[in-house]
Amino acid sequence: MPLKKKIKIGFLGMGTVAQGVWKHLDKNRREMSSRFGIDYELSRVGVRDLSKKRDVKIPPSKMTGDLYEVVNDPSIDIVCELMGGTGLAFEMTIAALKRGKIVVSANKAVICERGAEIFETARKFGGAYFFEASVAGGIPVIKILREGLVANRFPLIYGILNGTCNYILTRMERENASFETILSDARRLGYVEADESLDIDGFDAAHKISILTYLAHGAWVRTKDMLISGIRGIQLEDMLFARDFDCKIKLIASVRKNEKTNAIFASVYPALLPLTDVVANVNEVYNAVSLTGDVVGHTVYIGRGAGQDATASAVIADIADAIRYKQGAPMRPPASELGSDVRLAHLDEISARFYLRLEVKDAAGVLAKIAAILARQNISIALLRQYKHETPGRAWLVLTTHETTESDIKNACAELKKSSVVKGSAFVLRIFSSVK
Amino acid sequence: MPLKKKIKIGFLGMGTVAQGVWKHLDKNRREMSSRFGIDYELSRVGVRDLSKKRDVKIPPSKMTGDLYEVVNDPSIDIVCELMGGTGLAFEMTIAALKRGKIVVSANKAVICERGAEIFETARKFGGAYFFEASVAGGIPVIKILREGLVANRFPLIYGILNGTCNYILTRMERENASFETILSDARRLGYVEADESLDIDGFDAAHKISILTYLAHGAWVRTKDMLISGIRGIQLEDMLFARDFDCKIKLIASVRKNEKTNAIFASVYPALLPLTDVVANVNEVYNAVSLTGDVVGHTVYIGRGAGQDATASAVIADIADAIRYKQGAPMRPPASELGSDVRLAHLDEISARFYLRLEVKDAAGVLAKIAAILARQNISIALLRQYKHETPGRAWLVLTTHETTESDIKNACAELKKSSVVKGSAFVLRIFSSVK
Repeated sequence: MPLKKKIKIGFLGMGTVAQGVWKHLDKNRREMSSRFGIDYELSRVGVRDLSKKRDVKIPPSKMTGDLYEVVNDPSIDIVCELMGGTGLAFEMTIAALKRGKIVVSANKAVICERGAEIFETARKFGGAYFFEASVAGGIPVIKILREGLVANRFPLIYGILNGTCNYILTRMERENASFETILSDARRLGYVEADESLDIDGFDAAHKISILTYLAHGAWVRTKDMLISGIRGIQLEDMLFARDFDCKIKLIASVRKNEKTNAIFASVYPALLPLTDVVANVNEVYNAVSLTGDVVGHTVYIGRGAGQDATASAVIADIADAIRYKQGAPMRPPASELGSDVRLAHLDEISARFYLRLEVKDAAGVLAKIAAILARQNISIALLRQYKHETPGRAWLVLTTHETTESDIKNACAELKKSSVVKGSAFVLRIFSSVK
Repeated sequence: MPLKKKIKIGFLGMGTVAQGVWKHLDKNRREMSSRFGIDYELSRVGVRDLSKKRDVKIPPSKMTGDLYEVVNDPSIDIVCELMGGTGLAFEMTIAALKRGKIVVSANKAVICERGAEIFETARKFGGAYFFEASVAGGIPVIKILREGLVANRFPLIYGILNGTCNYILTRMERENASFETILSDARRLGYVEADESLDIDGFDAAHKISILTYLAHGAWVRTKDMLISGIRGIQLEDMLFARDFDCKIKLIASVRKNEKTNAIFASVYPALLPLTDVVANVNEVYNAVSLTGDVVGHTVYIGRGAGQDATASAVIADIADAIRYKQGAPMRPPASELGSDVRLAHLDEISARFYLRLEVKDAAGVLAKIAAILARQNISIALLRQYKHETPGRAWLVLTTHETTESDIKNACAELKKSSVVKGSAFVLRIFSSVK
């Protein structure tokens, strides 16, 4: 490929992240060019709404309301798709790749839903697709996983992949405040996505662990095949009780692979994490990703998981790699060639230690009844604590179990619900262990 | 460059790390080839002592006692220099690079001492030099810094870069044991380098921060221009006192750059690190590197800093990149082009908060005298605690200062030494802050 003197970069979308990318590339042109090894031009910006007010100053001549003007411009080498969504963003990505362009994206949703098609189109038309910013914001975890740890298989990947949930849990814990109070605050501060459920109910984290699962194991796991639960239902009491077990509660996204059975299990759930785990001490909007490799051992990566600048840092790293691809660097072999033989784990193959919070009658014999229910499901109690309840005649019974399968705990909860000594349902959390 | 069907890899040295690399590349050939995108052959191993017993089985026909048989073999594409040292290792590295080969190395000492010559030779003869394993073992920090965070300048880099010192400090703290006791144990376990001073006195960490300084700022800082102190002299009391200040003592290597004055300051010293800093919770032989980028913000990377497998993971990642270079990927622009305008900071430009432990007479008026000495050097006391001393009539006076320059503290210590109320010298530690 003949070397060009200048790389031309186009944008689809000019929201928060895109403005961050524009700002840094525009402001530090000399330094960035010397790091890229080539000069560049920010040549064309396609947006849906030209009239929208934006903080960065872009010459009006570079702006267009017709996205196709960006992807059809033969002089543009790299297209940054930072518009989000899975409809138009997918259409424009495919259109750009079909013209042999390199696409850089932060769009985790479109990768999860249409990643296989996107990668295949890139391959077929000699383009390329980079997506570092889609997982864990500024932490270059995709590069670390694929390149820095290329020698490794990954029996366990886990971490805090949603900054909003981590922010809420951190403030609940620090301020002894309820979930609802902090959530309203987070809404006011603009920390929660428009579709709130994406953050709070774990789907955003699920998209991200799905991408890491694909990269590590070569298989796409759909959100419908994951165990996903968010942070609703966590009460302030749980934060306090967790402390008595030397743990913190974090929303943990994880994927485990059993090397013997080739079964993989991806999930997102709030879990008790022992304070000795460095990830338990990652607070506020920070993300943490732990990659356990069969060669390198246990590693952890921490940084801001979102925000204009952190995400722009990842997009710019992708632009640097896109330039190298343009200059002749071969693409890494696709992850899909790695692990065609993996399969999804069944619920009865998956075990964990559990935390159960039960609202019970404060009466003699209650404990015996609950112990009997658990025993019938082969669940062994590790530790049990009783706490005062604000309602007279009631108590909180909090217990942790030894290793138990997901199916056994499910059955036990169904039975507990029917029991006359338990009010409502048991609130269940998993106890996450990185060493089992 | 025409694409070869198979990449040939040669070895210089077959010690612990090289055996790890051999083991993983030999055992997982099919999987590694698919990740590399090309098949490979482990073709030739040059060692100084053929008779040495080694754990991996290498066909005798591949072994040679003549190192030049490896670097002169025209069929070999990549040479792994894993022999260590700065004499013969340098000679063989240059010889290999002059023949256009790619050299992969874990040799931090030779990079610090002769890095400029090595990089220049690689450039001149169209070869390349990769050295991920030289800093922080299995953590791919060089790739993260140069590629994943390419958008950033680095006002602050710091971390735990010597696993042996971290192991000793962790055990002192956990077991309430003295430095000498744990050091003997570490020696017995083979955790300490043959030249013990490299680990204990901070020179190994200094080599590593020197490499990171070059990569971040484009300038070589010699160890003679660094402030280097090791962990000798840390008493068990210091660990206990530090706890009262909500800190842990860690050997911290760091480099700060003042963006206004372009002054850089690289150093290695034991420091009090607040427990709220995630690096303070990194224990045993683990390393942690924190990179603060002007775009990405604060990030931290944690993993094993040494050991056969973790280091092999980094060497294999370099081999993967070496293969891509061989297949046409351009080299990243050298760091030397980044920052020709940086300069070394003077001692009176550098300030920190300090911890002083003084053995004093347990008598009235002592505190006034000490406060007067500090006041004369414009040192303001932040917190002061007095502890019982095992010798009757004496006390431990422990104090922390507000922000103070290195020169002021140096002068104060000289005066304290002369004072009749202080026994011996003040023991000084810095209080490390990542936020100032």
